[in-house]
Amino acid sequence: MTTPLLSFAPGPTQLHPLVPSELRRMAADGYLSESHRSAPVRREVARMEEALRTLLGIPSDHRVLLVGSATEAMERILQGVVEARSFHLVNGAFARRFHAVAGKLGLEAGDATVPDGEGFRSGAVEIPAGTDLLAMTQNETSTGARISPPEVHALADRIRQAGGLAAVDLVTGWPTEPVDPARIDAGFFSVQKGFGLPAGLGVIVASPALVERAQERLGRRAAVGPFFHIPALADAADRHETVATPNTLAIRLLARVAEAFLAEGGGAALREAAEAGFHRWWDTVAELGLEPFVADEDLRSRTVAVVQVPSGADALRARLRERGLVVGDGYGPWKGKHLRVAHFPVQTPAMQATLLEALRQELAR
Amino acid sequence: MTTPLLSFAPGPTQLHPLVPSELRRMAADGYLSESHRSAPVRREVARMEEALRTLLGIPSDHRVLLVGSATEAMERILQGVVEARSFHLVNGAFARRFHAVAGKLGLEAGDATVPDGEGFRSGAVEIPAGTDLLAMTQNETSTGARISPPEVHALADRIRQAGGLAAVDLVTGWPTEPVDPARIDAGFFSVQKGFGLPAGLGVIVASPALVERAQERLGRRAAVGPFFHIPALADAADRHETVATPNTLAIRLLARVAEAFLAEGGGAALREAAEAGFHRWWDTVAELGLEPFVADEDLRSRTVAVVQVPSGADALRARLRERGLVVGDGYGPWKGKHLRVAHFPVQTPAMQATLLEALRQELAR
Repeated sequence: MTTPLLSFAPGPTQLHPLVPSELRRMAADGYLSESHRSAPVRREVARMEEALRTLLGIPSDHRVLLVGSATEAMERILQGVVEARSFHLVNGAFARRFHAVAGKLGLEAGDATVPDGEGFRSGAVEIPAGTDLLAMTQNETSTGARISPPEVHALADRIRQAGGLAAVDLVTGWPTEPVDPARIDAGFFSVQKGFGLPAGLGVIVASPALVERAQERLGRRAAVGPFFHIPALADAADRHETVATPNTLAIRLLARVAEAFLAEGGGAALREAAEAGFHRWWDTVAELGLEPFVADEDLRSRTVAVVQVPSGADALRARLRERGLVVGDGYGPWKGKHLRVAHFPVQTPAMQATLLEALRQELAR
Repeated sequence: MTTPLLSFAPGPTQLHPLVPSELRRMAADGYLSESHRSAPVRREVARMEEALRTLLGIPSDHRVLLVGSATEAMERILQGVVEARSFHLVNGAFARRFHAVAGKLGLEAGDATVPDGEGFRSGAVEIPAGTDLLAMTQNETSTGARISPPEVHALADRIRQAGGLAAVDLVTGWPTEPVDPARIDAGFFSVQKGFGLPAGLGVIVASPALVERAQERLGRRAAVGPFFHIPALADAADRHETVATPNTLAIRLLARVAEAFLAEGGGAALREAAEAGFHRWWDTVAELGLEPFVADEDLRSRTVAVVQVPSGADALRARLRERGLVVGDGYGPWKGKHLRVAHFPVQTPAMQATLLEALRQELAR
């Protein structure tokens, strides 16, 4: 790790360029010694929240809740609002995890499962009657499949019309994918993916209906969770506070990076850049004779490109690493068969061009 | 926050002097972009564990489990091992929190409560029959009272002989207070106190009996928690891994600081320095005409000095702050009436001398 690497890992990923300087400032200005109830920390919580509201289009009556990771978000959401039945759209490892957490909570956790690499469209999904929560994984980091934002909205509309709630894993979707927080009840992510930060912070964007459901259950002493439950997180958020001492370092980094994204054009600019990068990537990869794991372009992830390497991906990954270029291995059963290549905002067009040129040279050897 | 402050806040507190340089290295060497299953992260998890084992005297059959905070540790421990009844020794705000978490889990959570500022001795405590877990707060950060390490051991012996488990909040106790991990079943802390790190990581040192109890309950499908439960944390620890992407930044900082403590003489040196600082502090404070909140020296915290200021502490705290010296306010009902002054390893004798001299001058005005 002596030469600086360029990381296309699907997360933790390349650090946002603001991270080193902001860490340096934080280590010197006393912020990291402040209590979570102090003015400096409350100010950063408020700045982070305000920047995320603008960047993601979060309505004023939705709350920004802080947890330790996206997996903890799954725990708190399911425990908080599901009385009996959750239903999961499963097309990869992270959707399976969401489903497994529900099972471990003793919920009736139904699922519609498709093979890895396939996706979902609202028209083809039957949501069972009596479902309290529909769980979707907008962008499946393990396979490079997505549920397109319009399909997420259509699925969410259906469960909400039926009196249920819509929870969406946006770990590798936001801030690029335009899933509208107003159209769902919980959207959650962790900061080491699309925001290019060190790991250790998860964010839940929660609708009023989600919080009210959890409060109503708490009111009649249902098991919403011991301490960091949704009603407690919501109360703290209403005061620009946190329930206990949080990862204040990551909160300040998230505020700065979200503000930087806004200064560079906000959500629309990020989406445009992602869409352009998506097409550049797959056009070039096709020229090189490689295929995407997800054939259908609408179902293919905009942020994690999964490329099939029939001849075996390990040697290719190793040679790229020798050039200082880190790409992800296939996930689970696809280890050694796929390359997983992040296209988050931190992976700039120049970085992508460097990687594509290296790929071209390696494949020509 | 333009001039560097010296922090005596009870946590988050003064940063350990290694933090700025290590953050700089981490921001440059690619570590923060590594997966939690990668060799560099596993290496840091192993280094952290090994350094803590030596520093705290953790037996080889006890495990080091990672969570997001000390409060999350309370959740996971109680949920993991308590079948019906926990019993809590309560003498301040953090012990009340431990007790409250048990109540929210629907446990029969009994308590022996003494007024703030008082402590516990084993001889005076009756532990009800059938208690699954005895919960102690070794060092009560809110009041500056402690349970002395020999009394912690005596209390733990009693609950263990009765077939129960002993859990000890050591958030502001370790690494200074010599509570022996072999004598208890769970000791937990967060890193922003005695280790002088940015917040966002909690550590549970777990006995084999604690893990086996949780595994046994999981085996018969008791509700041990959804995902980050004790058996899952233990399985991951056995592989020097974590269950999901953790706060890798804090893990590496904790490894480095624990190693630095070892290089400077280890646990014995820390305890000796703390004991010497304790006596220097209270001898001088007595000369200045101020009183400790906890009169009994054996029950008085070695790491958080709580000083009564009958004339009102707010103005004094403000004047110290003008001199660049940050001390904590009283907690809860004691706001404005107490100074809380950290004596962790990061508060050096030179820092203490600076604060005492400033106090002397301010009180003489």
